[in-house]
Amino acid sequence: MGYYPSLLMDLIRNICRLPGIGEKTAERLAMHILNAPRGEAEQLSRNILKVKDRIKLCSICSAFSDGEICDICRDRTRVSTLLCVVEQPADMVAIEKSGSYKGLYHILQGVLSPMNGIGPDKIRIRELISRLKDNKVKEVVLATGTNVEGEATASYIAQRLKDRPVKVTRIASGVPVGGDLKYVDQVTLRKAMETRHDV
Amino acid sequence: MGYYPSLLMDLIRNICRLPGIGEKTAERLAMHILNAPRGEAEQLSRNILKVKDRIKLCSICSAFSDGEICDICRDRTRVSTLLCVVEQPADMVAIEKSGSYKGLYHILQGVLSPMNGIGPDKIRIRELISRLKDNKVKEVVLATGTNVEGEATASYIAQRLKDRPVKVTRIASGVPVGGDLKYVDQVTLRKAMETRHDV
Repeated sequence: MGYYPSLLMDLIRNICRLPGIGEKTAERLAMHILNAPRGEAEQLSRNILKVKDRIKLCSICSAFSDGEICDICRDRTRVSTLLCVVEQPADMVAIEKSGSYKGLYHILQGVLSPMNGIGPDKIRIRELISRLKDNKVKEVVLATGTNVEGEATASYIAQRLKDRPVKVTRIASGVPVGGDLKYVDQVTLRKAMETRHDV
Repeated sequence: MGYYPSLLMDLIRNICRLPGIGEKTAERLAMHILNAPRGEAEQLSRNILKVKDRIKLCSICSAFSDGEICDICRDRTRVSTLLCVVEQPADMVAIEKSGSYKGLYHILQGVLSPMNGIGPDKIRIRELISRLKDNKVKEVVLATGTNVEGEATASYIAQRLKDRPVKVTRIASGVPVGGDLKYVDQVTLRKAMETRHDV
């Protein structure tokens, strides 16, 4: 890898560490930075550190936030009786982009995974239960993943909330919209069949 | 795009400007930076600016360099009678990686393109000719691209060097090694057939 000046190699190596970026892409990105106006490189450089230093987790829902409490938790127009439980901040963003939900969120920051030593104490389940204490939340929507760990986490939380005066729901799983049945895996298809509904 | 804190959105937008990086990838990279150790983010941030400020073009061949003259031009073990002409620094790196060439380089920093107003004066042809003045170079290898503009540039340079005491060669084009004939385009195949050689 000694074909570039060592300074440029350092940058290529740094970029290579980013997820999903191989050597060729890293070279291409470094070349772009080298040819870009200095202002663009400066902004990128500055914002990398700004994000590291100033983005925190919301003290209520644990989403990324630039203040103590995130925009959604602060937003009085959101339906405060609805609470959606997700694994990661990115899941929350995906739901927000769908525009299908106007309630609040609770981010677990993980998923139950006994194989990896992640039990109920390692994810934010205690915080979820304490958010429900004042009985203002009427429905908890479990929107953890539909893989084994996500399902186990949803079941565990449903179990823990069983005796509380709150409705617990789970997002539907089935054939993706626009999906061609012949390309859908068997497990999804079975699930879609089992949870069929009247039209 | 108001789903992330604005500081994080700024970084995602900066990353989106990089070539070949879409919104989803930019989000993923920003998340990685957010979760990475501060040292890693610091290095990335610092090296982006270092590269902008300290990488220059070699005053002889015009490759990227961290000094006035690049490592290859300074290297006394390279064959100084051989000069390979390429369009861009990345082309030089590709040839270096192939390990098939031990001479020096001349980077044109472009290619002839009358449609875009790029004539012989806009690329480093004058510098090439002045490098040949002392007649030390015995062979100029034209390694511009094999597309229309690259071929035109190679022809133009060959024409300009016709009366000089220097051998002018062109890299071969043909079927890529490991290529299956049925997937090779017709133009390449015709070229490979025309330039067939004895075995």
